[in-house]
Amino acid sequence: MYIICSDLEGVFVPEVWINVADKTGIEELRLTTRDVSDYDVLMKGRIKILEEQGLTLKDIQNVIAQIRPLDGALEFIAWMKERTQLIVVSDTFIQFADPLMKQLGRPTLFCHSLEIDERNMIVGYTLRQKDPKRRTVEALQSLKYQVIAMGDSYNDISMLQQAEVGILFRPPDNVVKDYPDLPVAYDYDALKEILSKYL
Amino acid sequence: MYIICSDLEGVFVPEVWINVADKTGIEELRLTTRDVSDYDVLMKGRIKILEEQGLTLKDIQNVIAQIRPLDGALEFIAWMKERTQLIVVSDTFIQFADPLMKQLGRPTLFCHSLEIDERNMIVGYTLRQKDPKRRTVEALQSLKYQVIAMGDSYNDISMLQQAEVGILFRPPDNVVKDYPDLPVAYDYDALKEILSKYL
Repeated sequence: MYIICSDLEGVFVPEVWINVADKTGIEELRLTTRDVSDYDVLMKGRIKILEEQGLTLKDIQNVIAQIRPLDGALEFIAWMKERTQLIVVSDTFIQFADPLMKQLGRPTLFCHSLEIDERNMIVGYTLRQKDPKRRTVEALQSLKYQVIAMGDSYNDISMLQQAEVGILFRPPDNVVKDYPDLPVAYDYDALKEILSKYL
Repeated sequence: MYIICSDLEGVFVPEVWINVADKTGIEELRLTTRDVSDYDVLMKGRIKILEEQGLTLKDIQNVIAQIRPLDGALEFIAWMKERTQLIVVSDTFIQFADPLMKQLGRPTLFCHSLEIDERNMIVGYTLRQKDPKRRTVEALQSLKYQVIAMGDSYNDISMLQQAEVGILFRPPDNVVKDYPDLPVAYDYDALKEILSKYL
């Protein structure tokens, strides 16, 4: 039996931090791991900016609630869920993902979490485990599932490689160049065509 | 982070085979593991009856589609999904569960599968693995989740015992007597009260 593990941002919804930067007008929130390679330095910088601007978790959630899923994402999720089980695996935080998951009909999500204080300010974050995407595929394989994994970027590669079937979705060109063996899809119809071979 | 693993029949929907027996009028389909202790003998007997009666998978699915979720199940599932992730773990078969899962908004389901031939007749079944409910809890624990498990009967016990929190929901009296240490809830409000301690 096949099961699907999919990344969230870039597959079903746009990149969250870039949109938060756009909607709040805070340019520094645009920085990603491409600009600041140490994730902890990046996240602590983001938390410091939110604190300086006096933005609570609720403020950020209200901004994120304005982000819309990618065109066709809802239909594509419904299509998959009629055929198999879907687990969304993301390096985002549950509190940020929630306004988006609500719009997606709340498929199961495995991700990280933020630490919130009594002022509703973000004061830290907890990563659930190292290499959580690959570990999720392994956990599902321990349940005798065969896994089809989909993602768009470098943090998805270990998941795509651990899965029985790994598919890149709308990846940047450098990812395609670095991993030429992985099949690539640029729209949901192309994904459906690949998935239909297995489901 | 807590995650919920729940049984399906008896928790969100009524017992499927008993309802199929009622709606088809085929009394022999009422037999359960309480009557025939060897599951393989029981399932092969059921498959033989369906073959004799000329009932296809589609016929049975049409019957199952008439079964309604338990009163309040949809609201309870929505309540859980707003607070955490839900995985439904069942010893049913995906083809039987599907008309019910559709009504429940298709939460993620881990279960078994039927073998169907070109006539759409059920000719066999595949159990995904042994002790699948306990294995699901272990897999989620390998992802650093703490698990709250809910179920109503003997086949749920290893899952409830492996979980950080195990709750019996509307169990028969003999299950309560055999496992006096497990907390028991008889309605969704009582379940919510227990879950609220962790979520």
